[in-house]
Amino acid sequence: MAKYRLVYFRGRARAELTRLIFHAAGEEFEDVQLDDQSWQQIKTTSPTGSLPMLINNETNEQLVQSMSIARYIARELGLAGSDAYEMALVDSVADTMNDLLGDIVEVTFEDDARRKKERIRRFHERALPETMEFLDRFVGRYGKGSGYAVGQNLTYADLCIYNTADQMVLAGVGGWKDLERYPNIHTIVRRIEETPRFAGYLKSRPPAAF
Amino acid sequence: MAKYRLVYFRGRARAELTRLIFHAAGEEFEDVQLDDQSWQQIKTTSPTGSLPMLINNETNEQLVQSMSIARYIARELGLAGSDAYEMALVDSVADTMNDLLGDIVEVTFEDDARRKKERIRRFHERALPETMEFLDRFVGRYGKGSGYAVGQNLTYADLCIYNTADQMVLAGVGGWKDLERYPNIHTIVRRIEETPRFAGYLKSRPPAAF
Repeated sequence: MAKYRLVYFRGRARAELTRLIFHAAGEEFEDVQLDDQSWQQIKTTSPTGSLPMLINNETNEQLVQSMSIARYIARELGLAGSDAYEMALVDSVADTMNDLLGDIVEVTFEDDARRKKERIRRFHERALPETMEFLDRFVGRYGKGSGYAVGQNLTYADLCIYNTADQMVLAGVGGWKDLERYPNIHTIVRRIEETPRFAGYLKSRPPAAF
Repeated sequence: MAKYRLVYFRGRARAELTRLIFHAAGEEFEDVQLDDQSWQQIKTTSPTGSLPMLINNETNEQLVQSMSIARYIARELGLAGSDAYEMALVDSVADTMNDLLGDIVEVTFEDDARRKKERIRRFHERALPETMEFLDRFVGRYGKGSGYAVGQNLTYADLCIYNTADQMVLAGVGGWKDLERYPNIHTIVRRIEETPRFAGYLKSRPPAAF
């Protein structure tokens, strides 16, 4: 039996980062993806009423909040940085990318076509370049030429960068080409795509609507 | 010389949680509060271009992203939980409250009076009760009657609850009385107000506009 069970909807949005961390560490996990109807049925008996939810199958310990889950699993599996300060730097990349993911998710769930177009325009004019220019400098400084975001090894910061870019593309908000002007970010994204351990998963995972 | 320097604007919004953590731990820190003009002057030479920023005066290590800073300082000063799972639970309270703080900050910076009123209405109809009902149950379960949010001791989760409530009041979005219907949350807030170490700071801190 896998130690952890990750429960979410049939989509990537707030759960895919944790899935990528499990795959990066080569750790098996139960990937429970619910449709809306099943979730409505168990929602009232759920201790929290929100997804994603992580459950430890051995202790029955539960945890909610997508970034708290991702951070916890990354630390448990050795993908969160090598000392307290490096962990904080990794967290700061993840928090930065999660802010950008928030903007992307907002666009995804915008039903009004005109407002959606306007949100996408503002995303490209402001949120994307401001975040990426900062991040590209940050990686140049703290990745020290390793090809990773922080320090000498893969951390969940790299996965967070990849995942946010992937969701930007999935949501139709931007394309992979938009990252090419940020050389350090581009290197990280390419490296993750080409790592065999991910490449298999990335190619085989089901198509998602969000 | 204090070990840490926290740089932010003359306000509470994204820096007050870290200030409260320093006060809770009895750790001196340099509390640098800039006006807009001073920030514009140093912004271009700043490695990140964003505030708040934490600087270690001994090593010159820098860190951005408000929640990454708060989490790092809380862990360094022993206010982040007693084991990996408890730390994750504390993080999840902090992330939940930070989402609510995001709603509050949005209202604060809404200039249009009609839209501001509408945002406040939605805040009371949905964001506040949904978050507080969840959190009150959560504290009942994980605080185990200690009067703290998680485990047997004060953590930055408690400070995050207090701080978000304080900013809700400061922004004119709600009042302290709004918390009375959530007994576990109300207990935490009262306890922090009455702890001598905070009470002095809370009474002496300068009035803030945000």
